[in-house]
Amino acid sequence: MALSEQLRSAADEIWQAQHAHPFVRGLGDGSLEPERFRFWIRQDYVFLVEYARLLALAAARSPDLETMTRFAGLLHETLNEEMALHRSYSAELGIDPGALEREEPAPTTRGYADFLLRSAAVGDFAELLVALLPCMWGFNEIGLRLAADGAHDRYASWVRMYSSAEFGDLVGWLRELTDRYTWSAGLERVFLASSRYELAFWEMAWQQESWPSLTQPGG
Amino acid sequence: MALSEQLRSAADEIWQAQHAHPFVRGLGDGSLEPERFRFWIRQDYVFLVEYARLLALAAARSPDLETMTRFAGLLHETLNEEMALHRSYSAELGIDPGALEREEPAPTTRGYADFLLRSAAVGDFAELLVALLPCMWGFNEIGLRLAADGAHDRYASWVRMYSSAEFGDLVGWLRELTDRYTWSAGLERVFLASSRYELAFWEMAWQQESWPSLTQPGG
Amino acid sequence: MALSEQLRSAADEIWQAQHAHPFVRGLGDGSLEPERFRFWIRQDYVFLVEYARLLALAAARSPDLETMTRFAGLLHETLNEEMALHRSYSAELGIDPGALEREEPAPTTRGYADFLLRSAAVGDFAELLVALLPCMWGFNEIGLRLAADGAHDRYASWVRMYSSAEFGDLVGWLRELTDRYTWSAGLERVFLASSRYELAFWEMAWQQESWPSLTQPGG
Amino acid sequence: MALSEQLRSAADEIWQAQHAHPFVRGLGDGSLEPERFRFWIRQDYVFLVEYARLLALAAARSPDLETMTRFAGLLHETLNEEMALHRSYSAELGIDPGALEREEPAPTTRGYADFLLRSAAVGDFAELLVALLPCMWGFNEIGLRLAADGAHDRYASWVRMYSSAEFGDLVGWLRELTDRYTWSAGLERVFLASSRYELAFWEMAWQQESWPSLTQPGG
Repeated sequence: MALSEQLRSAADEIWQAQHAHPFVRGLGDGSLEPERFRFWIRQDYVFLVEYARLLALAAARSPDLETMTRFAGLLHETLNEEMALHRSYSAELGIDPGALEREEPAPTTRGYADFLLRSAAVGDFAELLVALLPCMWGFNEIGLRLAADGAHDRYASWVRMYSSAEFGDLVGWLRELTDRYTWSAGLERVFLASSRYELAFWEMAWQQESWPSLTQPGG
Repeated sequence: MALSEQLRSAADEIWQAQHAHPFVRGLGDGSLEPERFRFWIRQDYVFLVEYARLLALAAARSPDLETMTRFAGLLHETLNEEMALHRSYSAELGIDPGALEREEPAPTTRGYADFLLRSAAVGDFAELLVALLPCMWGFNEIGLRLAADGAHDRYASWVRMYSSAEFGDLVGWLRELTDRYTWSAGLERVFLASSRYELAFWEMAWQQESWPSLTQPGG
Repeated sequence: MALSEQLRSAADEIWQAQHAHPFVRGLGDGSLEPERFRFWIRQDYVFLVEYARLLALAAARSPDLETMTRFAGLLHETLNEEMALHRSYSAELGIDPGALEREEPAPTTRGYADFLLRSAAVGDFAELLVALLPCMWGFNEIGLRLAADGAHDRYASWVRMYSSAEFGDLVGWLRELTDRYTWSAGLERVFLASSRYELAFWEMAWQQESWPSLTQPGG
Repeated sequence: MALSEQLRSAADEIWQAQHAHPFVRGLGDGSLEPERFRFWIRQDYVFLVEYARLLALAAARSPDLETMTRFAGLLHETLNEEMALHRSYSAELGIDPGALEREEPAPTTRGYADFLLRSAAVGDFAELLVALLPCMWGFNEIGLRLAADGAHDRYASWVRMYSSAEFGDLVGWLRELTDRYTWSAGLERVFLASSRYELAFWEMAWQQESWPSLTQPGG
């Protein structure tokens, strides 16, 4: 079995919990409150800046020119298209552009971004790939399921983006790159950690998570 | 004002919350339950492995031979003395040595370690120093306060270690190194983040924190 | 005086030696033998792959989103436009495209690329900038001088590229970025090392440098 | 065949050229001029500072605690014992200690150190190991051959150090670590490059290499 399949299988429980999460279901059936979606958009914008750093490290550490060129392309798109999309989405949702730039990461956003960057900077290239995979593949799997179930109009553009053929091709390429490597306990640990952070990211937006107060520790 | 003083002042509210935390108070007056201390020891052991990676990165990136030699010495001591001390402490507390090696990081331990490593690997050398400072300086300040208040016998060896002259010298050296740099908003952000993680680490051990269940997200 | 001016001034002797180098003069007056230019193109192609890794590291370590976006754009252009230009140039010069991909770095190319990547990966962000600056600024200064002297037709497109307003703007931006920092002996050392490698790169192509034979060491 | 054997075999011509090099032969039969040995000691001292950075990166990126502890020990010894030995050796040879600290790398020293650090910082952990191996294993093989041939008194302490059982154990451990990985063209390329730099390092000391003059480029 190819590495990406083995990893996906090991993380199945976590991925199923994502599909069952009320935030994800609410994206599909339109029941997700705008306030929670706004929270997600703002945190995802902060996350994308760090995610772009990961893509840049991937380009810097690519084993060959072709891989480097694809990661550089993905980096360029993320910074120019995906983030622009978030900005225009934010405008529609009434989020002030300045607020977007000043947004601070919630605990889960910070934890996930730091885990990705630490894996990408200190680990092997295979660890970088496997840390990244649950993010791209997971969004594609979620997008495709929601599209298949017939997504409600409200978040239809979100569903369309992540279920698109272009996005699917990107995921296919990343899986092929991953499948050049063989399974190890260390790689599985990284994949599970990123998968858990993906799930936690929905929960963070659902709960509109904030940093704990300093005044009542041990409470 | 020297950089380290400026940073300490900016983080004062967080550092005061550490001094007031029931875990810290309990270390001093002996009221801390052994179960909570055992949890802390096990998580701190996991943390020290990652902390050692930070010290190794500090040695690799040191601006001169003298700084490199000191970080390499600190790394060597951490891996050989401090971790041995944790192992012997664990034995006294009835923690199985195998359990120590298999311990998994709690969310806060993972978040803090990844933040440190990401800062040390992607940031400038000054960011590495400033990320590290709240850990070493904070333990020294706590150790000195508890010692001054007259620590209870139960955790007296813990208090002695972190209030010792040797440990104080180490903190003095790290502050001098830091004071070669000047204040920036970015450095203050890093210092505050590490300070917050220091506080969260006590809270994590106090609550015996675990990863959220997968079965009841959005609950 | 701004940092970039201070550095340029410290390296003036090396930069003058570049302007006086027969390879550079030959680019301007058309006297450069095609064989030597072919050698340069092939080695520069190998170099650009490593240079792209440096730009990717710059994006990964950028202090803010705007800087990251510019480095990511520059990376994207280098991999898609500059390298394509080299490939089409090579075709005109009768270099087999396969040969271009299989080209091995000469000693100077390897030494320069490794110096850049080591500075970019282990040093501070300011070191990365200062290591990169002699490459971009130097080509612009050479291009502008040759253009002012009235370049011969033979290498006119080369001269045009590096004396263009776009390229000049890029250099201006990189200098502004550098000028946010202040002079240090360490930064000057890095700038001088890169400047020396720039000069050595012309000499390498002029001599069509190869690795020393293994069979007559100590000769 | 284990990876280390495959690599050693691929580099055999280079390693034989090392054994045949007049610098190496002169270490064994005592015919090496003190001036050349002094040059080597000074450059090797500069090299060791960078080599220590590589060991620190190895500790930071180690896959497990045991490997990290060994690399940290090796780093500590290199900075405290091996460099102290170089300093005392230098004193005997009449090299001023200040001169040792101010020594600048010759082109080959800089090229080798930058290659090692770039491989250690940007490549996978296996690349770091394979870049390091020709340095430690090569010195051991040379030491053992010279010892077997009956080394002359003059450089006997040098020969003793690198043919010692302790040093041999270290090399054995590094080979075992390397042998966990499987052959790839990329790893062979790294091993050959380091092997070539090892040979070039003897030649550099033999020729008392200096940076090319700036005043006669293209000469």
